[in-house]
Amino acid sequence: MKTVYNARHAAHAATREFFRGRLVPAFEVPARADYVLAAVQAAQLGEIVAPVDHGLAPLERVHAPAYLRFVQGAWAEWQALGGEGDAFPAVWPVRSLRSDVAPRSFAARMGLYSMDSGTPLTAGSWEAAYWGAQASLTGLDQVLGGERSAYVLTRPPGHHAGADFFGGYCFVNNAAVAAQAALDAGLQRVAILDVDYHHGNGTQAIFYERADVFYASLHGDPQTEFPFFLGHADETGAGAGLGFNANFPLPAGASNEAWFAALEAALERLQAYEPELLIVSLGVDTYGGDPISHFKLDRPEFSRLGQRLAAFGARTLFLQEGGYATEAIGHNVVAVLQGFEPRP
Amino acid sequence: MKTVYNARHAAHAATREFFRGRLVPAFEVPARADYVLAAVQAAQLGEIVAPVDHGLAPLERVHAPAYLRFVQGAWAEWQALGGEGDAFPAVWPVRSLRSDVAPRSFAARMGLYSMDSGTPLTAGSWEAAYWGAQASLTGLDQVLGGERSAYVLTRPPGHHAGADFFGGYCFVNNAAVAAQAALDAGLQRVAILDVDYHHGNGTQAIFYERADVFYASLHGDPQTEFPFFLGHADETGAGAGLGFNANFPLPAGASNEAWFAALEAALERLQAYEPELLIVSLGVDTYGGDPISHFKLDRPEFSRLGQRLAAFGARTLFLQEGGYATEAIGHNVVAVLQGFEPRP
Ligand SMILES: [Zn+2]
Ligand SMILES: [Zn+2]
Repeated sequence: MKTVYNARHAAHAATREFFRGRLVPAFEVPARADYVLAAVQAAQLGEIVAPVDHGLAPLERVHAPAYLRFVQGAWAEWQALGGEGDAFPAVWPVRSLRSDVAPRSFAARMGLYSMDSGTPLTAGSWEAAYWGAQASLTGLDQVLGGERSAYVLTRPPGHHAGADFFGGYCFVNNAAVAAQAALDAGLQRVAILDVDYHHGNGTQAIFYERADVFYASLHGDPQTEFPFFLGHADETGAGAGLGFNANFPLPAGASNEAWFAALEAALERLQAYEPELLIVSLGVDTYGGDPISHFKLDRPEFSRLGQRLAAFGARTLFLQEGGYATEAIGHNVVAVLQGFEPRP
Repeated sequence: MKTVYNARHAAHAATREFFRGRLVPAFEVPARADYVLAAVQAAQLGEIVAPVDHGLAPLERVHAPAYLRFVQGAWAEWQALGGEGDAFPAVWPVRSLRSDVAPRSFAARMGLYSMDSGTPLTAGSWEAAYWGAQASLTGLDQVLGGERSAYVLTRPPGHHAGADFFGGYCFVNNAAVAAQAALDAGLQRVAILDVDYHHGNGTQAIFYERADVFYASLHGDPQTEFPFFLGHADETGAGAGLGFNANFPLPAGASNEAWFAALEAALERLQAYEPELLIVSLGVDTYGGDPISHFKLDRPEFSRLGQRLAAFGARTLFLQEGGYATEAIGHNVVAVLQGFEPRP
């Protein structure tokens, strides 16, 4: 399996983030991808290729252009205002407040285009996120070009980013960009399986009223786990998308048996959908040693996940999402990918 | 003019707040009310009375009971979780995220029930806000009982608090509680004039679809000033409330002439409404020396404001809102009140 590696991920390097209202050392750090790259190389997983630039247009197919322009220019605005350190939002347009007017105030637009105070906007956030999307599109090219699978190694992750907001460490929704590009390339039915510990609220929301992308996710119950405000089992799609969204929330601390039972249920739904492409939002914060998550998967389970996805039988694009036990991420990711495609 | 003084305001005492994503010393501090009390006493404005407890029911007429219960119990929850210092939210249900499910997570409910990260929830926030509402109801009793006017000295302020969220230093919307209580006492038409530097987004939203409360506000343009996401001139009410909301945003730095012209325009609308009661959301952060605001009023202008409101001719309930030039607040408030009712 080829790996598309976004070497520019390191441009996004935050030192601190807000976690439950406190400033703490950042969890989503460049070393995450470095460890994965080292593990991919050590395992001789396959060729490592660079992303090809597909431009901004594929991103604009799922994100509001005004939002993308904001993220692209935000650091320069922040610097022009004399901002010190990373930029954080502080006020949000919740119920009864308007989102249809973009204020001139930079602080206000930071809030307009975000959902939390835990996602530092840094000097290189846009560069890293832009090239992450390009890496995802390049991985898609591989798969549409005949490869059975590809793995996209990038950060920051993408699945929390909505059509017009960042959050949960995510700025550009790589899974959504790739799914839409696959449709634009002629596919009719794309499935996204999100196995990150956290519900991919952005991905779900982007395709919620559409039947051409089926989003299925197993994740920590939003009653207690981020992103809190989406990911319940009763969210089954709306309008034309009714029946094409499936959530399998599991309580924090759920057993591996429960996790694999949910995986089977999700894959059953996706199998019935007969997708032409499977996109896997591959977060490994389901790992027992993850510092911010509460499932119990370990190497054998990640390997089993890979095997099970191989048995699903679809062309498969793996996109890196979360995973915060920095040193273990590489081994856990490789376990999934080698489970999917054992070395000959 | 009698002053209803909420002596329990000091229970809400934050040391730090987030301002544009940074932790800074709190602006909304107990000394604010202490200075006003001293100025009211020095000016011999009139009797100073204590709030009478009207219970929770009048608050539940404008706030969601679940929200009030949350604020009431939040500090105990935070302490039970081992929280250190004041509690701040960190994640918000913006577009595409759900507000109809209250998560079990305390961190999540902090975000569900708020709009910013600049409003610290402290040990005594509920006590101070509850008694602020009681003071407002007590002031209303004075006015409905035959007094021409009353002044309610309390903090934290109220006008940013929505039906189900806190923010902008506000937890309970005193103006909305008083207006609703006035209607419940038999009045048909209540006018709220909000002269605080900031738009009273909570008050507007609570009555936006109703004709029995006319909300008029002059304030810093939300394009650049908090609360950013409400307060534009095109917000004129909706449904049965269409035509009963009037905003007069002014650019930061607006001249006093422009400010009084906007005041005339607002009063013209309220005069046509023929209200049986005028509630004034009296923020004095319009003062030229205010540290977070950008208008230029000073003692003579505050006095002129009071005179003009007296000429309006309605029974008038003054409720203290913002004002952050701590030592000047008292003199500025007294200037308004003595302008309204000169000493005999
Ligand atoms: Zn995650
Ligand atoms: Zn104010």
